[in-house]
Amino acid sequence: MNLLLVDNNDFTSQDEVTISGRRFLQLKETIKPECGDTLRAGLLGGLTGVATLLKMDDSTATLRVEFNTPPPPPGNVELICALPRPQTFRKVLHCAVTMGVKKIRFIHARKVEKSYWQSSMLRPEEIDIELRLALEQCGDTVFPQLEYHNRFKIFAEDVLPEIVKGSALSVFGHPRAVETIPSELPAGTIQLAVGPEGGFTDYENMMLEKAGMLPVTLGNRVLRTEFALAALLAKLS
Amino acid sequence: MNLLLVDNNDFTSQDEVTISGRRFLQLKETIKPECGDTLRAGLLGGLTGVATLLKMDDSTATLRVEFNTPPPPPGNVELICALPRPQTFRKVLHCAVTMGVKKIRFIHARKVEKSYWQSSMLRPEEIDIELRLALEQCGDTVFPQLEYHNRFKIFAEDVLPEIVKGSALSVFGHPRAVETIPSELPAGTIQLAVGPEGGFTDYENMMLEKAGMLPVTLGNRVLRTEFALAALLAKLS
Repeated sequence: MNLLLVDNNDFTSQDEVTISGRRFLQLKETIKPECGDTLRAGLLGGLTGVATLLKMDDSTATLRVEFNTPPPPPGNVELICALPRPQTFRKVLHCAVTMGVKKIRFIHARKVEKSYWQSSMLRPEEIDIELRLALEQCGDTVFPQLEYHNRFKIFAEDVLPEIVKGSALSVFGHPRAVETIPSELPAGTIQLAVGPEGGFTDYENMMLEKAGMLPVTLGNRVLRTEFALAALLAKLS
Repeated sequence: MNLLLVDNNDFTSQDEVTISGRRFLQLKETIKPECGDTLRAGLLGGLTGVATLLKMDDSTATLRVEFNTPPPPPGNVELICALPRPQTFRKVLHCAVTMGVKKIRFIHARKVEKSYWQSSMLRPEEIDIELRLALEQCGDTVFPQLEYHNRFKIFAEDVLPEIVKGSALSVFGHPRAVETIPSELPAGTIQLAVGPEGGFTDYENMMLEKAGMLPVTLGNRVLRTEFALAALLAKLS
C-alpha cells in the first residue's frame, strides 16, 4: 500500500477518517505507524495528500487527512483485451490500472472460454477491490472505466471503427506481425488490443485490421498476457 | 506450453523421446494432441523444431523429434535484482526469462528480508522447474545464468564496477530519478538493476551511482516489481 485510499464513507468529521478491515490490517501490519506519523493518502476520485495517524485500537485507525495534490496524470493508452481466465484477469486489471490505463474494454474472442464470462471475478464488488488495490499500489485515486463486449463481431464491426477513428494510433499484438511499435508515437489517445491465450484467430486478426488497427509484434517470444501487456504499455507511453 | 522442452534424459532412441509427469499432463490436458499431430519442441540448451506424437498411454507420451532451428536470440539486457519475496521471485524469474534475459544477479539490499535468502524457492530443483516453465512459455531452450550476491557492499564495491565497465549502458530504477530511459540505446550489453519493494536506500542508490549506474525513472507510479521489470525490459530492448 503506497497510498491509503479513502472514500467519502470513511469520513467521521471534516478532515478525519476512520478505517477498519483490510486497510486497517495492512496499515497495522506492513506500515506499522506510530501516532503522529504521516503517510501518503488520497481521496477516491479526487486529490492526494497526507494522512496523519491520530489513534489506533485493535480494529480501527483514525487519521487526519489533507488532500491538495492532483493524482498522477492519466495514461494515453486505452486497452482492448480479450477477456482472460479469472486469475489472469486480476493480473491484467492490476497491470493496466497501475500503469495508468483509464479505459479498458474486455471483449470476447474465439479462444475466450464462455465460462470466463460467468466468473465471480467479474462481479462489481470483486472488481472494486482489485481496482482499489491497484490504485493503492501506484498512488493514484481515479478508477478506470470498464466496458464489456461479449460479441466479437458486433464489437469489431459496429464499435471498434469509431474508437479507432477517434484515436491517434491503434495497434494490436500479433506474434507474426512484421511491424514493431513505432518509436515516434503520435500525441493523443492510443488504442492497444491484446488477444487471448493462444492469440486472436486469423478471422479476428483480419477484422481488427479492417477496423483500422495495426498489427505489431514484440518479437518472437510468447509472453504471458500480463507481461505482454506491461511490455506493450511501456513501449506505447 | 508453447514449446515442449526435452532434455537428454528423455531420449529413448536417436530421435524419440518419452515424457511423463508434468509435461505429459500438460500435453494431454491442454494441447490434447492426436497421434500424428506435431507441436513445437526444443532441446534444452540446443535447437528447436517439431515433435510428432507417436503414442500416448495413461502416463507417458512418445514423440519423434526433429531439431533444426536456433532458439530466439538472447536479449541484450542483464538483470541485477534485489532478491524479492518468494512469490515475487517466481514472477521475476518468469518475466526475465521469457523476455530473453540470460544473466540474472540476485543481490541483497537493506529492504530484502534475511529470510528470503532461506526460501525454499531458491533450491536448485525449484529454480530448475521455474526456468523450464518460462522457456516453455516463450519458446526458448537456453537457461539463463543465475548468480547470488548476499552482501550488498561487497557486490557494489568489488563486483559491480567491473560489470558496468564491460557494458554499453547501466541503469537502475529509481522513483525520484529525473532521467528516463534514453530512446536511443547503444549496441551491446545493458545492465538493469531493480530494487526491493520499498526501493533501494539512499546509501544503496549512492553506491550504485558510484559504481557507474545511471538512475532512471518510469514515471511517478509505483509498480509491482514484476511489472516494473517487464516495463523496463521492454524499454531497454
